[in-house]
Amino acid sequence: MKKIIARLCIASIAITLTTSLYAKDKVYKLKMATTWGPTLSPLIDAANNMADMAKTMSNGRLIIDVHTSNKHKAPLGILDMVKGGQYDMGHSASYYWKGKDINTLPFTSMPFGLTSPEQYAWFYYGGGLELMNKVYDKHNVLSFPGGSTGVQMGGWFRKEINSLEDLKGLKMRIPGFAGEIMAKLGVQVTNIAPGELYTALDRNSIDALEWVGPSMDIKMGFHKIAPYYYTGWHEPASEMHFIINKRKFKKLPKDLQDIMIKAIRLSAYDMYIQNYDMNATAWQDMKKEYPNIKVKTLPKEVMDAMKKANKELRDEMSAKSPLLKEVLDSQDNYMLKVREWTKMSDYLYLKDNL
Amino acid sequence: MKKIIARLCIASIAITLTTSLYAKDKVYKLKMATTWGPTLSPLIDAANNMADMAKTMSNGRLIIDVHTSNKHKAPLGILDMVKGGQYDMGHSASYYWKGKDINTLPFTSMPFGLTSPEQYAWFYYGGGLELMNKVYDKHNVLSFPGGSTGVQMGGWFRKEINSLEDLKGLKMRIPGFAGEIMAKLGVQVTNIAPGELYTALDRNSIDALEWVGPSMDIKMGFHKIAPYYYTGWHEPASEMHFIINKRKFKKLPKDLQDIMIKAIRLSAYDMYIQNYDMNATAWQDMKKEYPNIKVKTLPKEVMDAMKKANKELRDEMSAKSPLLKEVLDSQDNYMLKVREWTKMSDYLYLKDNL
Repeated sequence: MKKIIARLCIASIAITLTTSLYAKDKVYKLKMATTWGPTLSPLIDAANNMADMAKTMSNGRLIIDVHTSNKHKAPLGILDMVKGGQYDMGHSASYYWKGKDINTLPFTSMPFGLTSPEQYAWFYYGGGLELMNKVYDKHNVLSFPGGSTGVQMGGWFRKEINSLEDLKGLKMRIPGFAGEIMAKLGVQVTNIAPGELYTALDRNSIDALEWVGPSMDIKMGFHKIAPYYYTGWHEPASEMHFIINKRKFKKLPKDLQDIMIKAIRLSAYDMYIQNYDMNATAWQDMKKEYPNIKVKTLPKEVMDAMKKANKELRDEMSAKSPLLKEVLDSQDNYMLKVREWTKMSDYLYLKDNL
Repeated sequence: MKKIIARLCIASIAITLTTSLYAKDKVYKLKMATTWGPTLSPLIDAANNMADMAKTMSNGRLIIDVHTSNKHKAPLGILDMVKGGQYDMGHSASYYWKGKDINTLPFTSMPFGLTSPEQYAWFYYGGGLELMNKVYDKHNVLSFPGGSTGVQMGGWFRKEINSLEDLKGLKMRIPGFAGEIMAKLGVQVTNIAPGELYTALDRNSIDALEWVGPSMDIKMGFHKIAPYYYTGWHEPASEMHFIINKRKFKKLPKDLQDIMIKAIRLSAYDMYIQNYDMNATAWQDMKKEYPNIKVKTLPKEVMDAMKKANKELRDEMSAKSPLLKEVLDSQDNYMLKVREWTKMSDYLYLKDNL
């Protein structure tokens, strides 16, 4: 009898320990590297919100430690660090890796491409998410949309652009694929560190620059020295990007994996909406302080030349990579369908209600 | 010694039971009533997705049983049933309760009002969610956005509308606040059960009708018999609505409350995007089968008269309820700020890329 009680007792203690310490209460700690500094709203907010949601929904069982670029000092090393396992996950933008793998380019935003609701519809209901994971499979990471800035502005110009001629020799800071398009039109494209941009523009070292949109531009102060604010064409839906090391993800229990995926998806949508509000507020503030800012759209001959340059560059890249072609074709086909709807819904509604 | 072991043993068994059966593994079962039938995509999908996410993220500890209107037979009794505790939560649309409480009207969509991204920004970052909960506080329910249809179409017309004169005596099915506006313009507003609409339109008992948008209209078949499809003005962002009985919500552990709120927020955004895709696809299919459908916008004199009627009706209602006035003023003020941004971002981008 004593022996039976003792055995029951040991079994019971074992179950207690297993239940409460291992299977249920085990805390999983992950590290996330971001491209952003600690105050770069709303981009860093998307990463922090994701981590906060994971913590509260898991009752503290899933703790994600977010490291800003101040900590790891490698803002453009996120993919490598997550791939290599120094970090479990990352928050950045897919097109930063186009130099390593050209196929990663189209998952942020393409010139003259899909808008944010259209692109989310493509990702989640039009095959985009599957294509993105096909591209990232060889990098051993899972890949997710990570928050949209909405339409990015075309940039700040000191002088008005009235013709293609006005672009010839214009010194402009505009990085990435958009810069390649501008270069084709005769723009002298330069890259300058963010901290030096204001001075460069103020001292005429550059004539124009592209940054993001009112929410992030306002802190940079460009509106104080360059009165022409051009509407967007090159990044109509810039989507940030969460990646997770596959091996690390597989080690999580099923419910925490699910919490993670849902927290990512929600923080992405939320960043889009948060930034929509931030843009509206920042623009109101800018206009109040500097009523002479002029919103301009590049003239039709410039737009047409940019569309032509865009097509040529895309064709060149596609010829080198069938997978890139597959992704771009998927976006183009989706556009043919979805833009018709956008036109008859949002566009025609707004036309009568501006 | 024996006594100590015995006590330890009992304590251990007690902990085991508490840990595994009560605090950790206790399953909470809730019932959700929806206004929708079991196949009414995407509306019923938002409710089902919310329940699925709650289940998987909670590892089966939060089970929400979704009842369609086929089960409870009270599609327009959701608020009463959740308030009274027959159901723990509901999925419906806020403006259905305007007859009981006029203050519930503005949380779905207002004529000539905010678009979906603008309205989400107002809800989550512009004070809208707080105002909605202020209104629903007296009904003892917590209240959340529950999924947007985006811009709803103005409806199907058998004849083209070229002037205000063409609206006089026109028999149209258009319920709710939009119907009141139309009635002011001389439209003979009728209400007809959904199942009889097609026949009524086909036999000329009505000349026009408003339903939702391509994703839901396609199943009704109106495009086969009424060739003019008018663009939207009356519901630019129709938002569905989740409500939860406050007493029931308080009984849930903190982490399950959090999972619930996040699942609601995510399923709402997802419905917006899902329906964006469904609209694009349904419109493509309709046009393929019936290439003669003509997309039309009501003429300016009609729009202006509707805007005037809208303002008059809003002023009458506001005069009777200071809380309604507070909500409408909040939306109007937000519109002044956010529409400027929408114009310079999405609108001007789309204008050059249609």
